[in-house]
Amino acid sequence: MDDEESRQVIGMENVRHDVRDKVQGRTVYGSDVSLPGQLYAAMKKSIYPHAKIISIDISKAKAVPGVRAVITGKDYPFHFGGFLEDQPILAIDKVRYWGEPVAAVAADDLRTAEAAARLIDVVYEELPVVDSIETALKAETLLHDDWNAYEKKGNCHPIEHSNVVDRFVLKHGDIEKGFAEADVIVESEFRCGMLQHTVMEPHSAVAVADEDHIRVYTPCQSPFAVRSQIASCFHYPLDKVRLTCTEIGGAFGCKAEAKAEPLAIALALETKRPVKLVYTRDDEFATSLARAGVLYKIKSGAKKDGTIVALQNLVYWDTGAYATFGPRVNYNAGYAATGPYHIPNVLIDSYCVETNKALGSAYRGFGVAEAACGYERQMDRVAEKLGMDPLELRLKNVLRDGMESPSGEVMKAVGVGECLEKAAAEIGWKDRPHRWVTEDGKLHGLGIACFTKISGTPSTTSCTLRMNYDGTITLNSASREMGQGVTTTLPILAAQSLGIKVENIIMADVDTDITPFDKTTTSSRSTFHGGNAVLAAAEDIKKQLRKLAAVKWKIDFDNTDYVNGRIINKLDESLSIDVNEVGKSGIMVEQEPVIAVGKYGTSDIFDPPVQETHQSKRPTVMWMMGANAAEVEVDPKTGKTRIVKIAAANDVGKVIYPLGCKQQIEGGVNMAAGSALLEEMIYENGILRNGNMVDYKVPTFMDSDFETKVILVEVPHAEGPYGAKGLGEPGTAPTAPAIVNAVSTACNTDIKSIPIKPERIILGQEG
Amino acid sequence: MDDEESRQVIGMENVRHDVRDKVQGRTVYGSDVSLPGQLYAAMKKSIYPHAKIISIDISKAKAVPGVRAVITGKDYPFHFGGFLEDQPILAIDKVRYWGEPVAAVAADDLRTAEAAARLIDVVYEELPVVDSIETALKAETLLHDDWNAYEKKGNCHPIEHSNVVDRFVLKHGDIEKGFAEADVIVESEFRCGMLQHTVMEPHSAVAVADEDHIRVYTPCQSPFAVRSQIASCFHYPLDKVRLTCTEIGGAFGCKAEAKAEPLAIALALETKRPVKLVYTRDDEFATSLARAGVLYKIKSGAKKDGTIVALQNLVYWDTGAYATFGPRVNYNAGYAATGPYHIPNVLIDSYCVETNKALGSAYRGFGVAEAACGYERQMDRVAEKLGMDPLELRLKNVLRDGMESPSGEVMKAVGVGECLEKAAAEIGWKDRPHRWVTEDGKLHGLGIACFTKISGTPSTTSCTLRMNYDGTITLNSASREMGQGVTTTLPILAAQSLGIKVENIIMADVDTDITPFDKTTTSSRSTFHGGNAVLAAAEDIKKQLRKLAAVKWKIDFDNTDYVNGRIINKLDESLSIDVNEVGKSGIMVEQEPVIAVGKYGTSDIFDPPVQETHQSKRPTVMWMMGANAAEVEVDPKTGKTRIVKIAAANDVGKVIYPLGCKQQIEGGVNMAAGSALLEEMIYENGILRNGNMVDYKVPTFMDSDFETKVILVEVPHAEGPYGAKGLGEPGTAPTAPAIVNAVSTACNTDIKSIPIKPERIILGQEG
Repeated sequence: MDDEESRQVIGMENVRHDVRDKVQGRTVYGSDVSLPGQLYAAMKKSIYPHAKIISIDISKAKAVPGVRAVITGKDYPFHFGGFLEDQPILAIDKVRYWGEPVAAVAADDLRTAEAAARLIDVVYEELPVVDSIETALKAETLLHDDWNAYEKKGNCHPIEHSNVVDRFVLKHGDIEKGFAEADVIVESEFRCGMLQHTVMEPHSAVAVADEDHIRVYTPCQSPFAVRSQIASCFHYPLDKVRLTCTEIGGAFGCKAEAKAEPLAIALALETKRPVKLVYTRDDEFATSLARAGVLYKIKSGAKKDGTIVALQNLVYWDTGAYATFGPRVNYNAGYAATGPYHIPNVLIDSYCVETNKALGSAYRGFGVAEAACGYERQMDRVAEKLGMDPLELRLKNVLRDGMESPSGEVMKAVGVGECLEKAAAEIGWKDRPHRWVTEDGKLHGLGIACFTKISGTPSTTSCTLRMNYDGTITLNSASREMGQGVTTTLPILAAQSLGIKVENIIMADVDTDITPFDKTTTSSRSTFHGGNAVLAAAEDIKKQLRKLAAVKWKIDFDNTDYVNGRIINKLDESLSIDVNEVGKSGIMVEQEPVIAVGKYGTSDIFDPPVQETHQSKRPTVMWMMGANAAEVEVDPKTGKTRIVKIAAANDVGKVIYPLGCKQQIEGGVNMAAGSALLEEMIYENGILRNGNMVDYKVPTFMDSDFETKVILVEVPHAEGPYGAKGLGEPGTAPTAPAIVNAVSTACNTDIKSIPIKPERIILGQEG
Repeated sequence: MDDEESRQVIGMENVRHDVRDKVQGRTVYGSDVSLPGQLYAAMKKSIYPHAKIISIDISKAKAVPGVRAVITGKDYPFHFGGFLEDQPILAIDKVRYWGEPVAAVAADDLRTAEAAARLIDVVYEELPVVDSIETALKAETLLHDDWNAYEKKGNCHPIEHSNVVDRFVLKHGDIEKGFAEADVIVESEFRCGMLQHTVMEPHSAVAVADEDHIRVYTPCQSPFAVRSQIASCFHYPLDKVRLTCTEIGGAFGCKAEAKAEPLAIALALETKRPVKLVYTRDDEFATSLARAGVLYKIKSGAKKDGTIVALQNLVYWDTGAYATFGPRVNYNAGYAATGPYHIPNVLIDSYCVETNKALGSAYRGFGVAEAACGYERQMDRVAEKLGMDPLELRLKNVLRDGMESPSGEVMKAVGVGECLEKAAAEIGWKDRPHRWVTEDGKLHGLGIACFTKISGTPSTTSCTLRMNYDGTITLNSASREMGQGVTTTLPILAAQSLGIKVENIIMADVDTDITPFDKTTTSSRSTFHGGNAVLAAAEDIKKQLRKLAAVKWKIDFDNTDYVNGRIINKLDESLSIDVNEVGKSGIMVEQEPVIAVGKYGTSDIFDPPVQETHQSKRPTVMWMMGANAAEVEVDPKTGKTRIVKIAAANDVGKVIYPLGCKQQIEGGVNMAAGSALLEEMIYENGILRNGNMVDYKVPTFMDSDFETKVILVEVPHAEGPYGAKGLGEPGTAPTAPAIVNAVSTACNTDIKSIPIKPERIILGQEG
């Protein structure tokens, strides 16, 4: 670490902070937590998707030796939810989805709890099942009688006497005028299936609670948001609720809100003992969270030259039985539903519709990947109708610096055009046909798709840095590591700013009692927001170190500087202190650390959207964007699609951690490939028919045997840390539509839903 | 909370922060921690007090199914120690005390580990046993061949080719001249037995370690000091060692340094698994820590009028086989060894002598209670020789404001005279005889004693306060709760300063990765140092809140104020914000907290003592002082002493928490009563003969059935938080000498050692 070059951290390859413990099996996940005297919980779940609860007989369960408590919804009649507090801890009076918990047991051991739960007798009276968007919209059966009975906790606009829990409208220009001006009009639909996050680690919570305090050990991804939900649910002051966070074995949005926590807390309150609740895989499928299914009804108007002049996108989210993060999906995907295009006349009318199904909530991208399926399949249809090349059509309309987005913002630092061109070049878009048949009769096709995505705004984050005596830094941030690499990226930013080694940054554990506030670990915001907070704290650390050195040197502060990991004495350079020697240098007293607080918030720059049109000069602090190109091979005999290659180009603003960027995009591509080709929660009259890891098809390594070429485009964001933008979710977004477009081209058809079903391709049901 | 009065927190009765969890059995102590995959450790201990290790055969132990590792000293040949790194993790080549660990086992369960440990065969060659101070001083047998072989980690001055590990000299005036001027000279001796801390919770550690990181879950009382010891022992950078602190079930000094941690770490390194080591009560007696025995040889010279003109105090600490905190006891008790008296000519010559016994280390007061036994018994002897009243003699010589102490400091805020007078009044010193015989032949006597004590200087501490959205405060401090009430006292100070309710202060858990640095939880320093840091942070919080409010109100900062829990708008009082409503007030963005760092250090005010004389204008930031008076009843038939009453007066500077003060003093009195009448580790030729809770006599509630009258004197310290001084250890200090003096008076004898032995009283061996 002698010269400037050796202190370069950003853009260099570093070892992931979390990798050693994970590989060596030392990481402590949620279910690894055990407390003295703890009880084990099990749930009794509904066997009907929609039914009145007539009676619950818990007497047999209570009589089982070792059972300490059996509770039903009426014992803890509280509701929770981040946007609408509509979800009971246990169903009260009626169940709204198959697998909804109706009672729970706490016992000395898990087997006893499970056995006792089976002995609970519930008498139901079945109700008509709202099993689809279409049924829900008829409003003949309502899941919830009165939206006003629930407290609103976030942006949420239910429609009275309906199953619509949220409506989002984005209006720009004059949609009727736009269509009137169009030379061609294309109307079509697209559907995406309901998905499970299928995280490796199921939901869990170990709760300790009394009348004054609640403490939960949980692998949740947004500790402060979950804390708010719990505090509100149980009517405790915020800071009497404490979340001690364990490491996360996968989240992707399904751990962004309360799930196992409220029930574990209720049982802990009931028994006055610690209670551990770990979801089984059955519980995960039946009663955790899901990506909502969605239906797009899209109408586009274009000029002959390819100029898109109007886009109407009617969106219907099949969001399941409770609101959860559905309204936020509706909002985020609503802004995304125009695509990254300059379109003068736009109407997005998006409905979040409740049905008797599992709970559609946050899932990597908050609906943005689904939205891209809708508008990007549509772009290919428009191109076909116009006889244009799909890439050319996109490049003609794509947003560029200085253009106004359909949301009303004058765009800056827009790299999506470059992403399109680079992804296309990588897949050989201009060098070869977009469809060909191999000698053995396999159909090959190329497809391309791009996307744009907002990051939740406004939001705040804070952190502390503690410069330790031995030259290390302790970084205290609530941005949760969930595989995305934030515990590597934030240290890299701190190390770069302070000129120390990245391995000398220690990430503190996350606990709401100790860790500074961070709104959520969602929305691809951690590098941008958390990174800015880290840099602010690092600047303060430098200032404090200079002050300490100035005292030691008996010189003015202005005669000090901090350059490249050295505290500089401008009057006598030979006295300058390497920050790695800060303890030995004697500027610290004993081992007293230098502590700095860093904050970053976007409430100042946020321009609140007009409610009726959602137009805003700055609806988001940061737009993310990218483009994928795909080559696929379809076997016409089996209808099966094999991905040959994905070229994935993302505008990351600035590469902070190359391996991390690559892993994020590769992971996102693989995950989205599952949504395109394999995954779907299949409901029959409200009952989940494939709720297990055999019948629900998650991509395995065998399915991921294709080439992913990652292309990192750097169009720096003026406000990002060193120019960086977010990258947590984008990898997923343009993957499925690129595959859908490639399969459509390969098969000379028009795929209208995902997952793409081989049987429909064989039977010619698509297109 | 509407008016100023209702916001008064200091001096009011509050509920102890720690009491609910402790009473309800929810507190997590060291042995409550279990990690996934952990192994259990057991030790093989030496059966000789001093012996060469010829060979260790671990083959039988290793062959036991379930045993994962067996290690000896040579496998991890590292040493640790806070002052001198002389203590091996496991004995290497030779053992130096009975019970010293020579080998250790890690196994799948505890019974297997213990069984395997018993199968380890050690062949010893016995060495001569250094079983007393006198034998040690002859230096015919040395415990350690060469002090220079060990690294010094703190103030420690061994004498070469001797068993003296530290010598402390305090010189003031001219001792020879002093004795020459004296009208009377009194020479005598006093001995204090070696004690066990006998804490309810034994030592324990759960360690996880690899080549880069060490993490230990431990109930240690000084996390940063123990971290330093571990890092140095294993040659790891400081901040690659992490201590996660569990609650403490009693410490009193025995958890101030590494004990169970190094061995648990060595076994964790060896097995690459978490290892849990919990001391048994046998382990505690044999191989934890102790209060060193001590011999005082005191010579006093006084004028006929009672003016003490010279004091020579030769001190010999029987500090056991390794240095541990012995040198610090020598230093602290060296400064205390003059008593709180103005004496123009002083020589304290104090030796910390190693013997083949358990490790004399920190024990509530660092030798100050023992020192008081020496000089306060001596004061009664001088009074007797002069024919003066012991109280009168003390009041004539006691330090008062503006006088120079024997350590060379001009004293301020000296309340010891007032303590003496109040304790004497409470016991009826002037109203009744000091000795009487009851009708049934019981001997009653009154005794009085006072003391003074320094607090370790220089030292630093830091904390953070986090003002939360809901008006609560999270206080992050490494001052450890060990029953002394620091987790109540620090919140009271924060609450008083900020005008919020004390129950709205949340104490964060302590973990060296997260918690700001604090030197130690020792030396009665936490209220003073930690309190000052809390007040500094609170001032910063107020400033930050005013800044946020000024932004909201769009007024100058100077037009805001913070008074009595309200952020004041001077231009429009009606806008002022109650701090309890800080979240709702809208001055915080989302739930973003206001975080402040508070520091307090004494390196600026500390005047380093001259090495030869230990004279200093300011050797300590704070002198503590007090006086006890005792009434005892001795049964001449059994020789047994029953305490009738203790009047315990302490100059606390300012009462922060009345119940806490009362409990500290009552607890100290009871503990010290044990040292005076019951407790002693009895060694025969280096072998502990009463190392169990039957034969070692700790006072029970039955023994504590006497009246303790607590008197709180408030002479405010200019630099203390609201004027407060420390009170953690003082309760113990003047108790034993007051009892000793009372028994001496009752029996017309001169007690020369503690514990007072009934058989010696019956046999007339005392006096």
